Amino acid sequence: MIDRLCIIGVGLIGGSLARALRKAGAVGEIIGCGRDEVHLARAKELGVIDTYSTDISEAVQQADMVVITVPMQAMESVFMQLQGNITESTVITDAGSVKGSAVDAATRIFGAMPQNYIPGHPIAGTEKSGVEASFAELYENRRIILTPVENSNPSALEKVRAMWQACGAEVIEMGVEHHDEVLAATSHLPHMLAYALVDTLARMDDKQEIFSYAAGGFRDFTRIASSNPQMWHDICLANESALKEVLYRFRDDLQLLIEAIEKGDSDYIKETFTRAKLARDKFVHE
Amino acid sequence: MIDRLCIIGVGLIGGSLARALRKAGAVGEIIGCGRDEVHLARAKELGVIDTYSTDISEAVQQADMVVITVPMQAMESVFMQLQGNITESTVITDAGSVKGSAVDAATRIFGAMPQNYIPGHPIAGTEKSGVEASFAELYENRRIILTPVENSNPSALEKVRAMWQACGAEVIEMGVEHHDEVLAATSHLPHMLAYALVDTLARMDDKQEIFSYAAGGFRDFTRIASSNPQMWHDICLANESALKEVLYRFRDDLQLLIEAIEKGDSDYIKETFTRAKLARDKFVHE
Repeated sequence: MIDRLCIIGVGLIGGSLARALRKAGAVGEIIGCGRDEVHLARAKELGVIDTYSTDISEAVQQADMVVITVPMQAMESVFMQLQGNITESTVITDAGSVKGSAVDAATRIFGAMPQNYIPGHPIAGTEKSGVEASFAELYENRRIILTPVENSNPSALEKVRAMWQACGAEVIEMGVEHHDEVLAATSHLPHMLAYALVDTLARMDDKQEIFSYAAGGFRDFTRIASSNPQMWHDICLANESALKEVLYRFRDDLQLLIEAIEKGDSDYIKETFTRAKLARDKFVHE
Repeated sequence: MIDRLCIIGVGLIGGSLARALRKAGAVGEIIGCGRDEVHLARAKELGVIDTYSTDISEAVQQADMVVITVPMQAMESVFMQLQGNITESTVITDAGSVKGSAVDAATRIFGAMPQNYIPGHPIAGTEKSGVEASFAELYENRRIILTPVENSNPSALEKVRAMWQACGAEVIEMGVEHHDEVLAATSHLPHMLAYALVDTLARMDDKQEIFSYAAGGFRDFTRIASSNPQMWHDICLANESALKEVLYRFRDDLQLLIEAIEKGDSDYIKETFTRAKLARDKFVHE
């Protein structure tokens, strides 16, 4: 049970967390915090939060849990405003898609990683954003990755874990660097490809017509290209190093496939497609 | 009304056509034809076809419509077996994903494009294959592209059009070359990227773990990588020329994006993602 929860950035992720905890009866008061008062008023109107403030120092007062669900690039500024305004017992976590840059920023601002800051990342979301799109079931049966560091406080870790479990999620621990590598491959890379594909087609001369003949496969394949551009801009710069590595790997593999198609290398093409199909079918059935 | 319909290759596409025409009461007898007798017997058992033969010359006897729904690479062999076995009034169409190679093969085998052969391509399908996966509603509100050529018989075109309309589809006409360019962009390219992505990840060392952290976005993005490898091998070689062009275009655009991420070129990244999101959102709402 969290008596006083402060959510900084009440959008899809933060809003859904609030709704889920409320539904589970696992939270007392929820304070929303953000830069846009109109937006916060709307979140209150929707019953997602109880009260709000645009001032972080005010919002986090007496909070026993602070959850930061802002775009990656705003993390550093939030840490700066948290500094000096939280008690020793306040637990902090976040929901950023990249953990290395969050840990770096916190270490820079606070001088060292705060023992009660447990970096986290819910593997959940939709291509929509904003509190209007939030819903209590977003985290049910989804995975939450926590990346505690060496000096992390075990009791803080336990509290963050319990919070996500109350939302119906499965909580997993992983190293910061490893998290960023895995997510670069399974999430950030596909988003880059979807954005790049749709943009390539959109800039082709007869784009109007091209899109009108696209079928269901295209719709599914490009769904993630409807994601928030600012958010994904932040993610790809925050995870530049791991993302670059998988992008190069993919680019080189694609080049080999292009050459195989040009040469009519049936074996190469069939082997590639077959390996991919087996891996994908296995993933779906797991 | 088609009195006697012969479907060569009774899989997802041919089976769904049979079921749809039957449901619409737009067909008399349906003869299935293929190489595998066990498979044809199963199609008969499922009520998809009335009778069958593994011999094309026998199957097409007295058929007023022959629909070829075999993999692209088998088209030429089917044309060879059709030669001399069809009457002057038999209408032929196909459902191949590439039209240039089908027209080339027919021209080569028959000496000229048969006036009653109207090349076609239903923009419909799922990642599944086989007659077991066929269903009568597959073509409802989907687009069928017909690519008649200069000497095509208008009455044959009309019959093929009526057949697809009876399945609830919208029929569109397009030039052969233009069809292959549009499909290379909206269908063949995305399939190449999905296969290449899943294969890249599958060959990474910790693949087991990587896939286990993939979320819904990845599932949707890679659905088409579960498609039939042989079929897509055939398609990418049959449409090599148009596909190569969009693959190069995509590769070059991806390279620019990689460089922008490396350089931290925020403007380039945000503009690319924003253009893509707008194009994708527009496509979905159309």
